[in-house]
Amino acid sequence: MTQWKQIQQLEMRLLEHVDYLYDDNFPMDIRQSLAGWIESQDWDSAVNDESMASVLFTNLLSQLENVRMQEQNFLQRHNMKIIHQQLQRKYTSNTTAMARVISTCLREERRILSSVSTQEQGALEQSLQN
Amino acid sequence: MTQWKQIQQLEMRLLEHVDYLYDDNFPMDIRQSLAGWIESQDWDSAVNDESMASVLFTNLLSQLENVRMQEQNFLQRHNMKIIHQQLQRKYTSNTTAMARVISTCLREERRILSSVSTQEQGALEQSLQN
Repeated sequence: MTQWKQIQQLEMRLLEHVDYLYDDNFPMDIRQSLAGWIESQDWDSAVNDESMASVLFTNLLSQLENVRMQEQNFLQRHNMKIIHQQLQRKYTSNTTAMARVISTCLREERRILSSVSTQEQGALEQSLQN
Repeated sequence: MTQWKQIQQLEMRLLEHVDYLYDDNFPMDIRQSLAGWIESQDWDSAVNDESMASVLFTNLLSQLENVRMQEQNFLQRHNMKIIHQQLQRKYTSNTTAMARVISTCLREERRILSSVSTQEQGALEQSLQN
C-alpha cells in the first residue's frame, strides 16, 4: 500500500494536518495521481544535487503529461494542464526547491503516520497492563 | 440543461477553446461545482457596479464553502479550500475584476455554443437544398 493510501485512511483530526502541507507549491492532485512514482524517487538527495533535481523535475512533468493524456474527464484533464504550467513557471529555474517541497511533504506524512503507530502501540500496551 | 452541461457535450476541437478560457483567475472546478448558480447571476451588470460585485463575491465564497462542507472526498475538499483562499487573495479588494472574468467566460461559452448551432443550421439547410 502506498504511503498516500495510508494517509487517506487517517481520522479527520490527522487529515487536517496533511491538508495544511499542500498548496500551490505541491498540488495535492499530483500527490494523488503520481503517488507510487513520487514515493519511489529520492527527493532527499535531490535537495542538494541540482542535476538530480533537474532530472526528477523533467520526469515529474513527463509523468504528469502521461496522466493527462490518459484522462477522459474534461475537467481533470484541464486541471492537469494548469498544474503542469504552474510547476513549469515555479520550478524550471529552481528544481531543487521543488525537491525540497516534496521531500518535506513526504517526511511530514511519515511523521504523522508514525505518530499514529506510536499512539496505537501505547494504547495497546496500556490495555494489556490494565 | 445548464450551459455548462451543453459545453461538455461539445466535440474535442471546440472543448479546446473552452479549455483556454479557464485558469487561476476562474478555476474550472468552481465553474463545474456551481454551474447552475453561476449562470443565474447577473455578472454583466456587476462589472460596472462595485456593491453588486461585492455581494456576488461574498455569495460565491459562501456557495463554495457549502460545497466544500458537503464534499466527502478528501482531495476535492482540500482543492475547494485552496480555491477559496486563491479567490480571497485575488479579488477581495477588486470584486468587479472577478465579475469581469466570469462575465467574459460565460459570454465566450455562449459564443462557442451558438457557433455550433449556426454550423448545424447551415449544414441542415444545405442538405435540404441538395
